[in-house]
Amino acid sequence: MIKDIIFRTKQASIELMDAKEDKKNSALENIAKAIISHKQAILEANKIDLDNNKDKISDVMYKRLELTEKKIDSIVTGVYDVIALPDPVFEVLEDYVVPPNLRIVKERVPFGLIGVIYEARPNVTVDIAVLALKTGNACILKGGSEAKTTSSLLVKIMKEAIEPFFNPDVLNYVDKREDTIEVLTNQNIDLLIPRGSKNLIRYVLDNAKVNVIETGAGVCHIYVDEYADDEMALKVIMNAKLSNPAVCNAVETILFNKKKEYLIKELANRMPNVIYRSFDELKDIKFEKMTSMDEYNTEYNDLVLSIKLVDDTNTAIKHIAAYSTHHSDSIITSDKKNIELFMNKVDSACVYVNASTRFTDGGCFGFGAEVGISTSKLHARGPMGLKELTTYKYKVYGHGEVRE
Amino acid sequence: MIKDIIFRTKQASIELMDAKEDKKNSALENIAKAIISHKQAILEANKIDLDNNKDKISDVMYKRLELTEKKIDSIVTGVYDVIALPDPVFEVLEDYVVPPNLRIVKERVPFGLIGVIYEARPNVTVDIAVLALKTGNACILKGGSEAKTTSSLLVKIMKEAIEPFFNPDVLNYVDKREDTIEVLTNQNIDLLIPRGSKNLIRYVLDNAKVNVIETGAGVCHIYVDEYADDEMALKVIMNAKLSNPAVCNAVETILFNKKKEYLIKELANRMPNVIYRSFDELKDIKFEKMTSMDEYNTEYNDLVLSIKLVDDTNTAIKHIAAYSTHHSDSIITSDKKNIELFMNKVDSACVYVNASTRFTDGGCFGFGAEVGISTSKLHARGPMGLKELTTYKYKVYGHGEVRE
Repeated sequence: MIKDIIFRTKQASIELMDAKEDKKNSALENIAKAIISHKQAILEANKIDLDNNKDKISDVMYKRLELTEKKIDSIVTGVYDVIALPDPVFEVLEDYVVPPNLRIVKERVPFGLIGVIYEARPNVTVDIAVLALKTGNACILKGGSEAKTTSSLLVKIMKEAIEPFFNPDVLNYVDKREDTIEVLTNQNIDLLIPRGSKNLIRYVLDNAKVNVIETGAGVCHIYVDEYADDEMALKVIMNAKLSNPAVCNAVETILFNKKKEYLIKELANRMPNVIYRSFDELKDIKFEKMTSMDEYNTEYNDLVLSIKLVDDTNTAIKHIAAYSTHHSDSIITSDKKNIELFMNKVDSACVYVNASTRFTDGGCFGFGAEVGISTSKLHARGPMGLKELTTYKYKVYGHGEVRE
Repeated sequence: MIKDIIFRTKQASIELMDAKEDKKNSALENIAKAIISHKQAILEANKIDLDNNKDKISDVMYKRLELTEKKIDSIVTGVYDVIALPDPVFEVLEDYVVPPNLRIVKERVPFGLIGVIYEARPNVTVDIAVLALKTGNACILKGGSEAKTTSSLLVKIMKEAIEPFFNPDVLNYVDKREDTIEVLTNQNIDLLIPRGSKNLIRYVLDNAKVNVIETGAGVCHIYVDEYADDEMALKVIMNAKLSNPAVCNAVETILFNKKKEYLIKELANRMPNVIYRSFDELKDIKFEKMTSMDEYNTEYNDLVLSIKLVDDTNTAIKHIAAYSTHHSDSIITSDKKNIELFMNKVDSACVYVNASTRFTDGGCFGFGAEVGISTSKLHARGPMGLKELTTYKYKVYGHGEVRE
């Protein structure tokens, strides 16, 4: 059954491969209108999911599961935002002629069939369906069972809205636990994106036999160099820790050059609610002593901060190489040589000079939309927008050429 | 032990990340000179491997294992070819400013540590080491044990040649069977490339826990459309089948539009040494009847050809979707509409109009070097040259910016 659904979705993906931007946008507009006109039904479906899960899930999960009129409006605004973005498909990346007389056109194309495994967030259902359709990809959504009434209704509404334009099998939804393993291993799926908790992503990485983009894990660092401006360092650290501690681009570890050790006390004064942890002996502040260097691997996602003293930029780079998840790392300095060292040798998707790691985000990077933040090195690194849902192919035009 | 070697190689990769082109080229030139001056020792080492494996391996494997003076000269020429190619590292892919005032530079960077698992081909040892060094990647080679004397000597020579310029740990070689599983799973490896037989590649894909580029499998198709020029079709098919049947870009299946059925007899006349196979009832020629459509999945790598009759371009596209390995597929036609259909809807790395599939090759595509031919959709598709050994990172330059 699930095998058949995936097969039908894959077949439908071929039809989407040469879909023109106008037609895709018309279908997207129809989706936006359909969601608005079914607002009450969506809220009622969501009520069923909320009632079924009351007291069964955490407050955070409950909040994410819950839809309000305002949330639905913002989902619809998101659809219009995607309509306004340029379609990356058919973009010519290279175009040249090789002997004997072959024209080679390297062109951006859809992946084909994208699978997404996510948790109980109904807004992700629409987000991903819309981004996939805009980029000419069919998509199979495996949502969390807690949101099944809401998500399956949203998919039903979207499929009806797609039908006047494309085979509605370009979008399908499954939510049974036993469907997961098929989504992880079915070779008709060209790209699998897990969205959700660390546990979900780990499970997908360990069990998938299809191409997976690893997203989300962020042990991000800020290195305060001996040539840093003190006020700038404090301002950037406070923003990177406090503005949204629960997200992946929040900072988890501050590396202080030993010449800047005096800043730690000032930091603790300005962020009194943060718990500080270190393997070093810190002076003048209250902190938890780590029992092992391995604790520097921790992504707290909370008001907790690891601190480490280092001798110089190279030591900071080595620490980051050992403990970073290669998501986002920043140096605060005014020294050109150290900037160059850090920017070239820190092997992360996004490396910053004198700025907060919190900017690692599709919106901040000007992509207009975000699928997730990749810590993979294959295909896409950092924030993923529409382009990152495409691959390329070589179109080769001949006149009967054969190879010698 | 093997864990330590991989760890040291990874550490050394950081040093290579900002290596300048001049210095890398100097090291490469030193490698070329060292191979020339150790030619006799290399031939003697190779003699040991040949003697140890006589009567134990197939003639084809023996030929591949064997080095001659001429082969060594051509390996050295290959090194100079790579020196002459432009270094893709540090290429700026995008450079723009976003609010509040962050400059984002998307830059091409080395992968880090590349692992290669290959068989008893000593020339691959040098090829890959040189391509990796040129692109600023450290590399760990896991060669076939049949070539261990030759390959370990080649690596020793290359490491000595690298030493005046870089930490020689940027290149390491292992050849024990038990090393394989570590190479497949060690998270310090940023990219793993299997090179060799179908079985080797299958084994790697099934067992790897690191990023793998799938290479080499080629069930390639030529579709002869109703609007094809007959002579061109025959010429292209003969080239694609006969010029080198053993390689992945050779054609395995010809799809004939039913209106072109008469060409099959002429093809059989011109290629009398080829065995024809079909699930259809072919008239006027001797052929083997397939017992199942699944046999169209076969990569013969030999003078055997599958034939299928189809009604139109869409049916051809559907057949290719079901049975191609998405490597290289070609249409022979003069019809613009069918060209567009085929080029957009055939989901393969390289799609051709009126040309032989044999052109899918790093050399033919103007890359100057080839790592392999990818049938993956992540990161790199089709022929892989130097650029395909790189990924990118975002360098973000600020002045103390924090996120609202």
